Amino acid sequence: MTDSKRLTALLPIAGWLKTYTRQDLNSDFFAGIITAILLVPQGIAYAILAGLPPQLGLYASILPPILYALFGTSRTLSVGPVSIAAIMIASALNEPEISALGNPVQSALILSAESGLIMLLMALFRMGGLVNFISHPVLTGFTSGASILIIGNQLPQLIGLKIPTCGFDGTCYRDYFLGYNSTTLLIGLAAVILLIFFGKPLTSLLKKAGFKLSLVTAISKCGPLLTVLLATLAVSYFGLTAHNKVAVVGLVPSGFPALSLDFIAIERWRMLLPSAAFIALIAYVESVAIAKVTANLRGEKIEPNQELIALGAANLVTAISGGMPVAGGFSRTMVNFTAGARTQMAMLIAAGILALSVIFFSPWFENIPKAALAAIILVAIIPLVRLENILHLWCYDRGDCTAETVTLLGVLVLGIEEGITLGIILTLVNQLRKISRPHIAVVGRIPDTSHYRNAKRHSVETWHHLLLLRIDESISFANTDYIEGFIASELIQQPDIKHIILIFTSVSDVDTTALEVLESLNHALQASQITLHLSEVKGPLLDKLERTDFFKKLKPGKVFFHTEDAVKELA
Amino acid sequence: MTDSKRLTALLPIAGWLKTYTRQDLNSDFFAGIITAILLVPQGIAYAILAGLPPQLGLYASILPPILYALFGTSRTLSVGPVSIAAIMIASALNEPEISALGNPVQSALILSAESGLIMLLMALFRMGGLVNFISHPVLTGFTSGASILIIGNQLPQLIGLKIPTCGFDGTCYRDYFLGYNSTTLLIGLAAVILLIFFGKPLTSLLKKAGFKLSLVTAISKCGPLLTVLLATLAVSYFGLTAHNKVAVVGLVPSGFPALSLDFIAIERWRMLLPSAAFIALIAYVESVAIAKVTANLRGEKIEPNQELIALGAANLVTAISGGMPVAGGFSRTMVNFTAGARTQMAMLIAAGILALSVIFFSPWFENIPKAALAAIILVAIIPLVRLENILHLWCYDRGDCTAETVTLLGVLVLGIEEGITLGIILTLVNQLRKISRPHIAVVGRIPDTSHYRNAKRHSVETWHHLLLLRIDESISFANTDYIEGFIASELIQQPDIKHIILIFTSVSDVDTTALEVLESLNHALQASQITLHLSEVKGPLLDKLERTDFFKKLKPGKVFFHTEDAVKELA
Repeated sequence: MTDSKRLTALLPIAGWLKTYTRQDLNSDFFAGIITAILLVPQGIAYAILAGLPPQLGLYASILPPILYALFGTSRTLSVGPVSIAAIMIASALNEPEISALGNPVQSALILSAESGLIMLLMALFRMGGLVNFISHPVLTGFTSGASILIIGNQLPQLIGLKIPTCGFDGTCYRDYFLGYNSTTLLIGLAAVILLIFFGKPLTSLLKKAGFKLSLVTAISKCGPLLTVLLATLAVSYFGLTAHNKVAVVGLVPSGFPALSLDFIAIERWRMLLPSAAFIALIAYVESVAIAKVTANLRGEKIEPNQELIALGAANLVTAISGGMPVAGGFSRTMVNFTAGARTQMAMLIAAGILALSVIFFSPWFENIPKAALAAIILVAIIPLVRLENILHLWCYDRGDCTAETVTLLGVLVLGIEEGITLGIILTLVNQLRKISRPHIAVVGRIPDTSHYRNAKRHSVETWHHLLLLRIDESISFANTDYIEGFIASELIQQPDIKHIILIFTSVSDVDTTALEVLESLNHALQASQITLHLSEVKGPLLDKLERTDFFKKLKPGKVFFHTEDAVKELA
Repeated sequence: MTDSKRLTALLPIAGWLKTYTRQDLNSDFFAGIITAILLVPQGIAYAILAGLPPQLGLYASILPPILYALFGTSRTLSVGPVSIAAIMIASALNEPEISALGNPVQSALILSAESGLIMLLMALFRMGGLVNFISHPVLTGFTSGASILIIGNQLPQLIGLKIPTCGFDGTCYRDYFLGYNSTTLLIGLAAVILLIFFGKPLTSLLKKAGFKLSLVTAISKCGPLLTVLLATLAVSYFGLTAHNKVAVVGLVPSGFPALSLDFIAIERWRMLLPSAAFIALIAYVESVAIAKVTANLRGEKIEPNQELIALGAANLVTAISGGMPVAGGFSRTMVNFTAGARTQMAMLIAAGILALSVIFFSPWFENIPKAALAAIILVAIIPLVRLENILHLWCYDRGDCTAETVTLLGVLVLGIEEGITLGIILTLVNQLRKISRPHIAVVGRIPDTSHYRNAKRHSVETWHHLLLLRIDESISFANTDYIEGFIASELIQQPDIKHIILIFTSVSDVDTTALEVLESLNHALQASQITLHLSEVKGPLLDKLERTDFFKKLKPGKVFFHTEDAVKELA
């Protein structure tokens, strides 16, 4: 590797900055502004969703994307506060022993720092491949479950419900449904309608009217900001904050966040570690999944281990600058991408705009009604609940369907971390179950060819003293038992068999247990005057077996290059 | 299934009793006596090894083998106290919170009852296949580790060491090595020499002298009994029990064990449950492994789920009759088998002899020196330490070697249960690691044939616009990432590729994640004017994929029956 390549691998920004053009800057500048417009309300909303003061979401939108821009391999991933991580933070902060400690802001900063350190450790041990242990059905089930939790968390905000403290007399139930606040509900519903209108309806309207595509995108992305602006104006104009009629964001401290390492001294690192590990895992997996979607569309490449470094650095810096944990977010990234971002320069510009808005405009955020923010979250999150997917899976793969359903129900009933753990374990067990009952085909020759196919599916030639078996899986401790049983029952059905030929087209490995079982099987067969042969053994496996004395023990059994050779010699 | 077959499946004894002959009885009678001669000293020795009074081993040798004879599918497995289970019981009873409760006999009875119930539950849920989750290397590592623990436990008994209670001044270290007892050491060494002599040396001597084989077997199996007899006579004659010169077994209660359900009322079931689960698992796995060895030699068949029922019943009855947990033992089974046992009748006879000896001879057991029993255990256990196996494995399969080493060290350093858990987890991770980096071969045609082989290993025809890839593993969430990466890097190296043909000879399954990845890969390839095709898709997978719209999305890509068809059309 040349020095320049090594630099680009470590600092991907060095790669694209060298060839950066004026056109790139034009595109990125436009995309950066559009994205920033979304990020202000989103940052505040996700901080509130996590149960934190609004500035933690804003601070998390400034320095983390800059760090990601330096180290990340995706050119369009937008890193900052995201909804799924926010609900995981809320769940961690609400655990009795954590909430008993008070000061949720300190806990949130430790979560940021810990998940950053965990990601960097994972990068050190090159554990980027860990993403392979979470299957899509588990991730979908998890996302649906977490989204439902978010909806349950935000709906009361939208309609102004006061969650009652229930007495034992059961009156609270009735109170719950009567406890909404009509002013809040009005604002919430108006916000939802406005947001939905700014989606597809407005886009197609503008397109029909012949507007330029970039302008259409720009206008449609302003929905959240406009919603927040209108709602805030309404609150201020009508004085709706009086008598707690409408809940608002409240005071947001002015100015740039002070960098601080104070959180290091706080003694709750150990208690928060398990939650931080799950946040790190999910933040990483979701970020890489989103980064891949956009990279595939542009023919770019994502480097999982480098992503761990970039996301780890982003989470460490969010802790230092007083922000909540960050990840690559789906909606923020898609806005950035569709607004035409070409490189991470767009996110640098967006971060700059956010920094300015925090310094100059934070007094304006005080009267933003929470109902408007809840509307933004709900409209963004509802499409992530993909229950129809479960029915679809049922037809294709029962195991995957079970894993998705269990993960979803686990998240809802047992908790976020328990649900994902259950899902991962279930996929691993499924995987082993598949391996432990491999498909084994009794094969025969398709007449007038040298091709061998399943005797149950094709009309083939067979020979009464030859048993040709194709084992469709690597042989390992997990399935030797099943394979032995299969051969034993075939021999009972076909007592004339004198030669068994195991066709190894699908056998990529024979582990120690399997080797021992094959040896004892061969021994037992020899005692019954039956000879065991192998055919079509693949190169790497042949090398491995030749290092043992297995082929010597197999004699007079042979290893044939083609199954056809075996049949010619033995038939 | 006919009524008679159903009866035989539930009570295998009904199967062989119907055809039982006079010759069978002669063989079984002889084998039963020989086995009983071994079982008396072994039963006492293993009870002492477990830290229990000697009668718990004797009682465990009477009713449990009778229950196994009724329900078990092995004709020669000898069920009773075994060394590995004994050391696991000792480890469970020595746990601080268990030993603090006092009365280890009660704890042992609960362990018996619980492991019996766990086995029956496993049988109910047809979990006999669980044996597939423990690979041979893990089992070997576990056996070696447990054997080393047993040696460490028994060596002090052999040489009469008093394990000193150490002061802080460090004197105990010197005391330890001076603390042996020369009389005990003499008895111990004499016993070891006698036992070794009764093994191979005596057998080959008698064979050379022209004795009948059955007589040779009978004489050589008397070694343990003769050792115990001579040692006991020496102790009694020289009055060695005075001044605690030589530790002896002590009083063994006379008479048949009283059946009792008292242990049910004791409140420590929950605390012992984890240990009981591990004992049940190991007892089951070891028993089935041993049963299979002898069944293979005779062409008989072991039914895992029925074994769970038989071993579960045996463990329940050992609890009721005041015995320690039982399993199928290796040395006891091999003695029974080589002495010529044809059916479980041999064990019924052995159990009868043990019952008589407990009723009439138990006063004789009092002066058996523990050193002689330690010698019996050590001579039996040392061959089970198979460290050379690790070196052997190193060459064949690194993953299996690591699993065996970690299990062994885990047992020694962390504890028995921790070691086996670690081993099982490691094999599962190894399995996934293998799946996640499948072998992928770029293949070409062997000239003048229709066979396609790895281009790196054979000289083959290739085409500059065709990429033929054989993926040697089922495609699943664990390896889609790797496969995508492989294809991407091939395309960079060969920019002229217009068609990619994935050869599915080794692909038995495509899970949901893999299907989604294949769809998005196909989408991305189409955008680059590259067509994706499949060939040699196996029947069950073809059916599964046809239930989706994947083949429609693949168009103009096709599914070819033979790779040759694809090449003919596209080359």
